[in-house]
Amino acid sequence: MASPEASLTLAIDAMGGDQGPKEVLEGLALAVEEVPRSAKFLLVGREEEILPHVESSSLLASANLKVLHASEVIAMSEKPVAGIKKKKDSSMARALEFVKDDQADALLSCGNTGCLMAGGAIRLRTLDGVERPALCTIWPGRERYFTLLDAGANPHAKPIHVLQNAILGSNYARVALGLVRPKVGLLTIGTEEGKGNELIHESHEMLKNVHGSVLNYAGLIEGFQIFENVVDVVVCDGFVGNIVLKACESLSKLIGTFLDEELRRNALRKTGALLSKGAFRSLKQRINPEQFGGAPLLGLRKHVIKAHGSSNRNHFCGAIKIALDLMQCDMLGQVVADIAAANEILRPEIFPEHQDA
Amino acid sequence: MASPEASLTLAIDAMGGDQGPKEVLEGLALAVEEVPRSAKFLLVGREEEILPHVESSSLLASANLKVLHASEVIAMSEKPVAGIKKKKDSSMARALEFVKDDQADALLSCGNTGCLMAGGAIRLRTLDGVERPALCTIWPGRERYFTLLDAGANPHAKPIHVLQNAILGSNYARVALGLVRPKVGLLTIGTEEGKGNELIHESHEMLKNVHGSVLNYAGLIEGFQIFENVVDVVVCDGFVGNIVLKACESLSKLIGTFLDEELRRNALRKTGALLSKGAFRSLKQRINPEQFGGAPLLGLRKHVIKAHGSSNRNHFCGAIKIALDLMQCDMLGQVVADIAAANEILRPEIFPEHQDA
Repeated sequence: MASPEASLTLAIDAMGGDQGPKEVLEGLALAVEEVPRSAKFLLVGREEEILPHVESSSLLASANLKVLHASEVIAMSEKPVAGIKKKKDSSMARALEFVKDDQADALLSCGNTGCLMAGGAIRLRTLDGVERPALCTIWPGRERYFTLLDAGANPHAKPIHVLQNAILGSNYARVALGLVRPKVGLLTIGTEEGKGNELIHESHEMLKNVHGSVLNYAGLIEGFQIFENVVDVVVCDGFVGNIVLKACESLSKLIGTFLDEELRRNALRKTGALLSKGAFRSLKQRINPEQFGGAPLLGLRKHVIKAHGSSNRNHFCGAIKIALDLMQCDMLGQVVADIAAANEILRPEIFPEHQDA
Repeated sequence: MASPEASLTLAIDAMGGDQGPKEVLEGLALAVEEVPRSAKFLLVGREEEILPHVESSSLLASANLKVLHASEVIAMSEKPVAGIKKKKDSSMARALEFVKDDQADALLSCGNTGCLMAGGAIRLRTLDGVERPALCTIWPGRERYFTLLDAGANPHAKPIHVLQNAILGSNYARVALGLVRPKVGLLTIGTEEGKGNELIHESHEMLKNVHGSVLNYAGLIEGFQIFENVVDVVVCDGFVGNIVLKACESLSKLIGTFLDEELRRNALRKTGALLSKGAFRSLKQRINPEQFGGAPLLGLRKHVIKAHGSSNRNHFCGAIKIALDLMQCDMLGQVVADIAAANEILRPEIFPEHQDA
């Protein structure tokens, strides 16, 4: 686990972005001026595509970085487990190996999400006490940003996984959003006790039990409250989280398209749109929280961060800074401590046969 | 079951809307000119609030309507089963009784959704072969509207419920959207076989088995495809559907607020917004499909339609016309036939012990 004076080495899977390694490297060039001097970077991917960019950038030439060749690239269409297992010399598989072998402390990739989740779970394994990794996302709310997890790493969640998601999300919200005691809410339908399903009932009981000590649990929340900043960490299982995430991303795009179409419908509207174009640009930025540089896969022994395939240099720069923040603040140590504390409290629930021991 | 020459009596729970019975009655006044001459209306609620509006409207005076007094109103905050059982003289409970006793063929209400769902299920019971009712909603897609169900009636769905939701949604899409062979998609995460959860795997198999005969099943779809009009009927369980519906409604509002804030930020933007205000009005109409007048609770022995509490007269007018369409086209008869056909095909799956009989 890293401490402030520990090594800060980030492995970057430089392939897999929609715009190729160039945009990733431009993002790194933006970041190097703002990150600690001790930060090191391992750039993994096709040397012939990476080196020319590195050599032509004075900022990158001054950074502490190494290019490590990997001949293959995992395509966006490849299947999770098969993709990572078959392409052993892919940039993603190689980068995971470097992290696993302690040559790097964190991994950033904008490649195939399913392969990264499968590869992370298989190669890096979970932290002590953590049963399943969770994909954590940052969303724009009415007043401020919030986190939602699990966004799809574990579609077969049990109550203990939901509880652990809450702990993982709280720790991430502390680092990424700078919150001291993030409020956690469990996403369900209807907030009266008894509504929802079995998973919700049992998870709700567990969360209430660790409220105050391990977590700041604010209770159940409904779909319409997600964006209202009632809580800072919205917890759900990976099936629901993935569908809600994708539906909401898709709805934002649809509204953008409709707005665009309506503004082009006649000359008057076009003129108006030209005058207020700054508003549409700001709106787009507020809705799209990619400044946070993508979604961490939480619960693993090392930091793994998934950047969006469509990320631009600013998004990559944001993701690199978040990765270095995570390494510097010992989030992993805190997660292990919180999970142990929760297990201690919940022991009779998790292992009922030991209740009288 | 209604046929074109059958009686067309709609019970309207006139209370419960945010703007009181006046807006409901204005909606009815708009509708009476466009609906068949044989249509009759039972207006249920507080006589003293309803009668003055009826008497002051020449359109309503000419309509075939009766006002039936009910002294109580179910509040929005009341709990589903308790609310409907306790307030026996509420407009909703009375209206349900009229429908149950065949004095009306359909019910329209803008009151408490939970109470209407519980009351509908308890008082009216489900159609032959239908195991659970489903709440069906209409959404705006990129090119055209589509339906999504279950939006929250049944959060404990089994595969057979999901299959029946598909049948219910297809039949509703035929009437409400005028489609001949609506395409059905099952909402999940990742469309490769094997992804998703148990409910998805089993429902997918069942849906494939009835494809071609009972349904036009297009397969699995992901969250990001919902708005892309890949299918006309998006099927999911009530837990997922309710969360996605509420999250998306809430996100639309948030984007509207952000846009408004950004357009007011300086004089230039304000001027632009003024010129293109028609675009924002059109956008709002395209995103908000309340012209369809709310969500039917499908699968019951009579038609039950839930209008939004915030509906205006145009929305109520739309809902009234849809209710009359549903009665005229014998949707209930078609649902019963489709469910029977599906059960016949799936018999070995549903009742495996009879497989060799």
